[in-house]
Amino acid sequence: MTAPSAPLLIRMHANDNVAIVANDGGLHAGTALPDGLVLREHVPQGHKVALVDLVAGDAVRRYDVPIGFAHEDLPAGSWVHERRLKMPEARGLEDLPLATRQVELPPLEGYTFEGFRNPDGSVGTRNLLAITTTVQCVAGVLEHAVKRIRAELLPQYPNVDDVVGLEHGYGCGVAIDAPDAVIPIRTLRHISLNPNFGGEVMVVSLGCEKLQPERLLPPGVIPLVDERNVADIGNNAGPGLDVVTLQEHDGFGPMIDTIMARAELHLERLNARRRETVPASELVVGVQCGGSDAFSGVTANPAVGYCADLLVRAGATVMFSETTEVRDGVAQLTARAATPEIAQAVIREMAWYDEYLQRGSVDRSANTTPGNKKGGLSNIVEKAMGSIVKSGSAPISGVLSPGEKLNGRKGLIYAATPASDFICGTLQLAAGMNLHVFTTGRGTPYGLAEVPVIKVATRSDLARRWHDLMDLNAGRIADGEASIEDMGWELFRLMLEVASGRRKTWAEQHRLHNALVLFNPAPVT
Amino acid sequence: MTAPSAPLLIRMHANDNVAIVANDGGLHAGTALPDGLVLREHVPQGHKVALVDLVAGDAVRRYDVPIGFAHEDLPAGSWVHERRLKMPEARGLEDLPLATRQVELPPLEGYTFEGFRNPDGSVGTRNLLAITTTVQCVAGVLEHAVKRIRAELLPQYPNVDDVVGLEHGYGCGVAIDAPDAVIPIRTLRHISLNPNFGGEVMVVSLGCEKLQPERLLPPGVIPLVDERNVADIGNNAGPGLDVVTLQEHDGFGPMIDTIMARAELHLERLNARRRETVPASELVVGVQCGGSDAFSGVTANPAVGYCADLLVRAGATVMFSETTEVRDGVAQLTARAATPEIAQAVIREMAWYDEYLQRGSVDRSANTTPGNKKGGLSNIVEKAMGSIVKSGSAPISGVLSPGEKLNGRKGLIYAATPASDFICGTLQLAAGMNLHVFTTGRGTPYGLAEVPVIKVATRSDLARRWHDLMDLNAGRIADGEASIEDMGWELFRLMLEVASGRRKTWAEQHRLHNALVLFNPAPVT
Ligand SMILES: [Ca+2]
Ligand SMILES: [Ca+2]
Ligand SMILES: [Ca+2]
Ligand SMILES: [Ca+2]
Ligand SMILES: [Ca+2]
Repeated sequence: MTAPSAPLLIRMHANDNVAIVANDGGLHAGTALPDGLVLREHVPQGHKVALVDLVAGDAVRRYDVPIGFAHEDLPAGSWVHERRLKMPEARGLEDLPLATRQVELPPLEGYTFEGFRNPDGSVGTRNLLAITTTVQCVAGVLEHAVKRIRAELLPQYPNVDDVVGLEHGYGCGVAIDAPDAVIPIRTLRHISLNPNFGGEVMVVSLGCEKLQPERLLPPGVIPLVDERNVADIGNNAGPGLDVVTLQEHDGFGPMIDTIMARAELHLERLNARRRETVPASELVVGVQCGGSDAFSGVTANPAVGYCADLLVRAGATVMFSETTEVRDGVAQLTARAATPEIAQAVIREMAWYDEYLQRGSVDRSANTTPGNKKGGLSNIVEKAMGSIVKSGSAPISGVLSPGEKLNGRKGLIYAATPASDFICGTLQLAAGMNLHVFTTGRGTPYGLAEVPVIKVATRSDLARRWHDLMDLNAGRIADGEASIEDMGWELFRLMLEVASGRRKTWAEQHRLHNALVLFNPAPVT
Repeated sequence: MTAPSAPLLIRMHANDNVAIVANDGGLHAGTALPDGLVLREHVPQGHKVALVDLVAGDAVRRYDVPIGFAHEDLPAGSWVHERRLKMPEARGLEDLPLATRQVELPPLEGYTFEGFRNPDGSVGTRNLLAITTTVQCVAGVLEHAVKRIRAELLPQYPNVDDVVGLEHGYGCGVAIDAPDAVIPIRTLRHISLNPNFGGEVMVVSLGCEKLQPERLLPPGVIPLVDERNVADIGNNAGPGLDVVTLQEHDGFGPMIDTIMARAELHLERLNARRRETVPASELVVGVQCGGSDAFSGVTANPAVGYCADLLVRAGATVMFSETTEVRDGVAQLTARAATPEIAQAVIREMAWYDEYLQRGSVDRSANTTPGNKKGGLSNIVEKAMGSIVKSGSAPISGVLSPGEKLNGRKGLIYAATPASDFICGTLQLAAGMNLHVFTTGRGTPYGLAEVPVIKVATRSDLARRWHDLMDLNAGRIADGEASIEDMGWELFRLMLEVASGRRKTWAEQHRLHNALVLFNPAPVT
């Protein structure tokens, strides 16, 4: 498990004129590399070394693209870091290649997992009672009720994994008729319908909020409504929608009583469900990276990309996201789109986001973090090239706007979301993800209550230190112990184990639950 | 406690041509009122009745201002509701009266409460260990640690009321250098310094996030740093800032261990503190309304306004907020400003908010809710007139931009915030509030972990039904059982009891804690 002690550089493409240092602790000035290059200064782990003499203005190439231009002369063996590079302009959104590069992947058959089949045909990887909220006002009451449900009711329903209050900061005090309000509203709607909730929808509403239950979940959006009719629905709701309206109750005690009584009806139905063998094509995997370093784009993300291809070959659904992290690779995405229409949808999402950032007087370069730079990522272009490899090589077969639902779409999907870990995760939940894969180089304890999160370390050092948080160590690729293909297969098999409930992720074991954080580009009032 | 059975109308000003129905259940068509007026149709409780024959285009006056113009002829006895009114345009921000109306209020002496005196001179009403977070990424780990601190450590420190994790959705994946990012950053900074936390600042950081600890709490912002030096600070932090950086830990177990060990140092110091008698001038009261109805502006808000005057007379600080709810009363506010500079600051905040809403293609009218309209509030103008009375009659002695801190400012302060209950509460916490007063007509179980929230019902019916959630019943004013002055004094005395810890609010008893919801007008990335 220790990194090789011999100096090790990783170059991503034969045309690159920089490579990154793989060794733990970096490499000292004077270190001689196998090909005769001698380091002119100390280069930290994950950071770039000039492989040839660069003169001021030269393009610095990684992943076979110019990630920047040298500010000064950088002789071979120099440390190439963010202050020595000028960032390229963003690629314009005109004259992009549309569906020009098509890869045919061979089908992959025979893989299955044990999942919970839902009435609408989707499959859950967990069996959760989720309680939807229309507004933050009810969060205190719901949190109290959820604690009691977990302590008093859940033990009687052993086939139900947990109860989750879907709390959020939206629902009132917002400009609900603003053009962009559609994003948070459909996000909340679609999260309620996530496959891990078994089609049981239960809503806690205040009563006077802007986001009324019938606006959040209008008649028709919940499939198979007849089964879910319950005796005493709130008078705000359409037929079949189970709403507990706090303002219709005579105080706190009765509110809790009603929520618990209603919860029990849903728990009974959920408890009757059993896992069954389903094809791997029922996986709906959201991939993202967070706390990225230069190894993200070298180890974990390529392994995820390889695994994404396996999933697509198996007929499953894979979403990649994080608009500001793929913006600089837009030409790759439009070329890989399965049709010109899909390419246009990619462009539409990028254009929308460019404009959204501009409204706030920033651009895509606002994405990078102090940790990214410490970890060797000089700028958003380099970060994007390492992020986009999570999408593998399959054709892009669909595009979702933020908060939209997949509705059964298969293959590789570009789900446009901010790169923010918790906002991206929230939007992928809304899209219908039943399994989340998260790669990290700097390390994050990220987890969700709604869906298992498999965390993949980019470096062995992190995997070793965070042995009780990281589910897979892709650092073994840099250590020379495993190939990208090995690791992609290992991740694929781990996914089937986790999806089947045979294995719990570390985040599940510690119950690490990040908040739902909505993307609301519209004003609050 | 029952409402009088005789028909009862409430008119706010002698010049008004409408009044509201006070009776529970409203009044039926044909009801004869004491002055001979006969209702032409059923008018629900809280809704308006035309007192004279109005013809189409006539101004409908309430609070002595035109709250709208009749769309159609409305003979005396008609129900005057929102679909029968055209809303007036917003008052322009030019040619406003500046500091023209000054009221001299007599001092009020001799009132005290028992509070926790802080090193910086501020006074807490509760003694809480608050753990600041830089980023949502750490929320799962912190939640786990807080549960263990509460269960395992808190019983050993009986003078400490509780431990609170200051979780939020900000900190990374945001455009942190955008012009408007100053708002969420200073909000979080100032919340950490709230008087109820005893000057103990403990931060949990991930490590690679955008909002680094030294940016959140740069050297110098925490008073009396010397006392708080601890042995082993995170290497991201300036001297004296107690930071636990998760990425510096070898896994989940050690993270929890460190957080608990650090918490204990703070608990020891907090536990040594004792309440002492302090003048009422140490109260810092944030007032707001939520779930408003037509009684808000008739009972609870005028009582709060009377109490606000008592507080100002006692030398205390009172903040009123909710920009979209005072926008239509801007001329009242600028007239009441203590100086022309303060009036200009009011105008500056209104102009900023106008522009902010316009960026999202909406205006102040986006404020009103379905519940407001059901409760009888026709539009934002009428709602604003009923909201603004919470500020009483004192001169406005200062203005805070969103997230700014009072820093000892006294008197009546306009703290500009959105009207959203949870966002307003979060910003008033940042300003330094040590007591929160919340009036509600439709009813909300709102509560905060950080500060006691006194909830005031606008109607006896709500107070009766929500007997275990409402701390005071201002509906007695409409019932003819108490005057506005009586109720203002009752609230004032209740505040001193609650501030002293002798009485717990209902929200405290049930531990109803709404989330911190930040105002972030800048983009996410
Ligand atoms: Ca990322
Ligand atoms: Ca991310
Ligand atoms: Ca209000
Ligand atoms: Ca409010
Ligand atoms: Ca929580």
